[in-house]
This record gives sequence, structure tokens and C-alpha cells, in this order.
Amino acid sequence: MTISTAKRVRVMSGMRPTGRLHLGHLVGALTSWAELSRTADAFFEIADLHAFTTAYQSPEEIRAAREEMVRDWLAAGVDPVTSTIYLQSGVPEISELHLLLSMIVPVSWLERTPTYKEQIEALGSEIATYGFLGYPLLQLCDIAVFRGERVPVGRDQVAHLELGREIVRRFNRLYGETLVEPQPLLTEFPAVPGTDGRKMSKSYGNTIDISDDEETTTKKVRSMFTDPQKIRRNDPGRPETCPVYALHHIANAARTPWVAENCRSGALGCVQCKGELAEKLNAYLRPIRERRTQFDDARIRTIISEGTERAREAASSVLADVKHAMKLDL
Amino acid sequence: MTISTAKRVRVMSGMRPTGRLHLGHLVGALTSWAELSRTADAFFEIADLHAFTTAYQSPEEIRAAREEMVRDWLAAGVDPVTSTIYLQSGVPEISELHLLLSMIVPVSWLERTPTYKEQIEALGSEIATYGFLGYPLLQLCDIAVFRGERVPVGRDQVAHLELGREIVRRFNRLYGETLVEPQPLLTEFPAVPGTDGRKMSKSYGNTIDISDDEETTTKKVRSMFTDPQKIRRNDPGRPETCPVYALHHIANAARTPWVAENCRSGALGCVQCKGELAEKLNAYLRPIRERRTQFDDARIRTIISEGTERAREAASSVLADVKHAMKLDL
Repeated sequence: MTISTAKRVRVMSGMRPTGRLHLGHLVGALTSWAELSRTADAFFEIADLHAFTTAYQSPEEIRAAREEMVRDWLAAGVDPVTSTIYLQSGVPEISELHLLLSMIVPVSWLERTPTYKEQIEALGSEIATYGFLGYPLLQLCDIAVFRGERVPVGRDQVAHLELGREIVRRFNRLYGETLVEPQPLLTEFPAVPGTDGRKMSKSYGNTIDISDDEETTTKKVRSMFTDPQKIRRNDPGRPETCPVYALHHIANAARTPWVAENCRSGALGCVQCKGELAEKLNAYLRPIRERRTQFDDARIRTIISEGTERAREAASSVLADVKHAMKLDL
Repeated sequence: MTISTAKRVRVMSGMRPTGRLHLGHLVGALTSWAELSRTADAFFEIADLHAFTTAYQSPEEIRAAREEMVRDWLAAGVDPVTSTIYLQSGVPEISELHLLLSMIVPVSWLERTPTYKEQIEALGSEIATYGFLGYPLLQLCDIAVFRGERVPVGRDQVAHLELGREIVRRFNRLYGETLVEPQPLLTEFPAVPGTDGRKMSKSYGNTIDISDDEETTTKKVRSMFTDPQKIRRNDPGRPETCPVYALHHIANAARTPWVAENCRSGALGCVQCKGELAEKLNAYLRPIRERRTQFDDARIRTIISEGTERAREAASSVLADVKHAMKLDL
């Protein structure tokens, strides 16, 4: 993606501050964010209000995760000068847009969001709040308030974005062309399994965190699940089923043919294979972890508050257009 | 109600700008507002966002009704110097509070609001929007953002206010004592039937408007429904069933015993009875209608913009407390 500074495409993305970031975030989002922070007009949101949709009983945890998450972003190479890092709750225009658009969004559109009933079943009826029901609308507001043109999404989130586009079309039909229909920026990346072979996720306790030290990383890699049919060193393995092999793809790409071949033949034992992975993973994460130490708390707070100021400026002009279209000027 | 200026109780109320105000508004709310505007620390809201919950397809009508509605308030004697008249959409803190509180309000609390399903049946599924579902929450935010202590309500709205109080209690329990539980200020007033005997309401087309001229008022009174059993002048009537008699109570209170007696005996015919009512109604409305002409558009716009500024000041300090309690300070 090479876009001239003169007309960089506006990209919007965000993450909920609910804990330390891990290898899955790095591969699935942050590597791409780092590039977008330089090549696009990128807005990266600390989605603290979204965090409240499910974690409203833990405001301290949301608060504590905020700066650490931004530290992980910066470590991954997101440039805070050429992009805008901001706090969602610090941009009141998002709340205003949310209330305004709530007037034209049928409840049924929100109820039929694929994840709505699923998540209530998974997380319990305590999260069946009005705010949680409005989650997809709030996501659209995050984007629309900056007239975001592109949104990096995985295939599983395309439905959410389509609902957002439907809301924009309804607004423009009712009140005149004002908002921009955001387009997905499909990002393809290798699957990142956790240490137990399931998808890497904080809630499974199977993560390798960006902020882990090398010893912890090595220990976690050593404890990883492997092909259950490969019991002794010389048993032939099936690399395509093994999470250790999947992580070789990320941190040791050049050597994957060798690893696959020697796993299959039985020449490569799991202990040796994990040893090499741990070493390569630490090497891959080393510059990122080093960068992580270069931002002190004061610097991070400044980045957030300056970014939030920039975000407010961009948002307030869009909101003024929205209110004008709805004949709500003072 | 006589409260010293030093600690005037904070009262909050509002109306949706959806058309000209009528005798029902005057008797049911504005007469009391006029007194509260002087004796309490009163906030009167032009509830334009609430209007969007049902009239989102008619932004022009909402816009046009705004200034005319305030003109009716001022005509009724609301003092814009000792009270605060403001535009809901001009106070973004209300939207912010709405989004924050949405996180802790179960959808089921909103769905079980008595009016929710009723109104969808009456007005059609087009209004089954996310914003309409959130109506009672928005009402609470209107009050809570100013730490309103008292809310003038009719008996039929006590349930709405109780839901609001429940939301406040939940917030205070989760995040610490921050918001104030508003108390109802029950206002009792005579029922105001429209010209057809049903409740006076714009949607029935049976109103006598504050802004009507005297000729129109007289014509409307002459066309009023009366006791259907009193067909000829000398037939005995049943004043307790007659809307004309009900309006005598409002504009001609001293003479109601005489009217009742002579209606019952058959001595008073409907034509004469209506003639007297029209005269008394016009006399009652005359000073109000005269005051209506004393505020030009520029003055009304100034009242609204200055009031909105004052409202924002009051709201921003409460919102800062709310965000602090939720650990959302920047």
C-alpha cells in the first residue's frame, strides 16, 4: 500500500483495553497497523467504552489496561506522529453520533447481529444490557465520526461492517448524503494458535504476550501441545496439526520446509523443535520488546492526550455536518 | 412552594417540539412551570432528541416547532432569567451520559416499560428503533446530568421515573455514590378535554391552541361536543359528561355552580353556555397571547443559546464526576 501524503486514505481501527496484547494481536493486527500508521491517515482507537459493554463491572481493569495496550501498539511499530492514537471516551462526538443514529436504527437490525445471542449465551445474561445491544452501532459511529473510508477487518467481521454500511445508507437516504460508507480492508494473516492448540486468546490462558520476557516465552513454548501421535522422539509427526509448527511459520518462516520434513521423518524431536522455535520467537520479538521499554508513562499519556485532541477536531466537523443534516443546529 | 434563593431545589422538566402548545399544556404543565421558574432552580428542556424517537422522518417539523414552543412557554409566564431554557441536542453531556449509562441498563428494564409495546402498536413498527427503546434511559439522563432533585410528573409517568431511579441506584452501587435519585413532584390539575370530548391532543385535532386568535377560539368552542341527550335548548343536561362544562372549570371557575345548575334545569342552552365559555376563555388567554407577541425571534434565539450555555456548564461538572467514578478520566 503506497499512498501519497496528499490524499492518504482514512483508515479506522481499534482495540478494547482488556489486558496485555499477545502474538495473535501482533500478527493479526498490529503488524498491519504499523504499516498503515505510515502509509494511511490512520485513526487507532483505545475502545474503552466498548470494553464497558462486557466488563462494566471492572472499571479498574479497563483503566489499567489502557496505557499498557498503547505501549504494545508502539512496540509493534505504530507511529504516533503520522497516525492518531486516541481514547474513545475522550471524544464526546462519538457518543453524540451514537444517540443521533440510534433514532434511525431498528432494534431488529441489532438483534440479528450474529454475535449478539451467541455472546449472551457465552458470557451470561448480565451482559444483556442496552449498551451491549448497541455495540455494532457504536462500532459504526467510531468509524463514521471520522468519515473512515477503510476498516481493517477479518473475514468474520464483514457482517458487522455490512450492518454499519446499512446504517450509513439509511442516514443518507433520510437526511441527505452526509456520511461515508466504510469499506472493508481485508487482512489475511496466518492463524495463530495458542500454547494449547486452540485459537490464541487471553480467555483461554494460552497466550504468548508481547510483554513477556524471554524466559517466560521459552517456558511457554516448552509447555506447548504437539501432535499427540508423536510420543517418542523418532515417531513420525504431522506438522499440519501441530501448534508449534504453526508458530514456526510466524517466527521462523525460512526454516519451515526443513522443520516439516524432519518432523514427518521422525528425525526432529519435539524438544529440539520447541527449542528452535523459542529461540526464533524471542529473536522475532526482541526489537519489539526493546521498543516497548522506550516509552515511559508520561510519553504515553502525552501521545494519548494529543491524539485525542486531534481526533476531536476531525470528529467535530463531521458531527456538525450530521447535526446540520438533521436540522439540529443551535 | 416558597424556597429561598440560597438553596433552591433543582427541578427538571421538558417538552418535545412537535407542534403548537394548547390549553392542555397550559393547565397541565406551563402554569406550574411559570411558578417553578421563579421559586426553584428550574431547567426546562426543548427535548428535540426525544422528538426524534418518534418523528425521525420529519426533522423540518421538529426544527420549526422549537422556537414557537419556547414562545408559548414564555407567553405562559416562564421566566427565562431566573430559570434555564435549553436545547437538549445542544448539551452533548446528555448524549455522553446516555452512552455511559447504557452499559449498565438491562434491555429487559427498557422492554418492560408500560408504554413501549403500547406505542409501537399505536404508531407502527417504524418507531421500533434502538433510540425509541432507550427513551426512558434518555429521560433519566436529562434529569441526572443536572442532578435534578424534583421532576414534575403526572401520575401516569411515575413508573417511568421509578425506572430512572433504579438506574441511578445501580450506578451508585457499581461505581460509588455519584448521581442523585430524582423524586416526583406530583402535579394535580383538572382534566382538559378537547373539543370532541376526548383528551385534548394534537393528534386528535381537538385542541384550543395558546397561539390561536380569539375568533378561532370562539369558532372552536362553538363546534364543541356537548351532552348528546341535550338536544333542544330546554332539555335538562348532564354537565359532568360535557367537555364545555369541563372547560368552564378552567376559565370560568367562579361561575361553574351557576352553569351546572342552569344546564341541569334546562334553563341554560348550549349556544349560550358556549358563548360565555368562549368569552371567558379568550379573557383567560388574552394576557398570555399578548405576552406571546413580546418576544421576537432574535430574543428567543438568544434565550435558547444563553440557556444552553448555562445548561452545559451545569452538566459538564456532573459528567466529569460520572467519568471519574467510572475511571474514564483522560
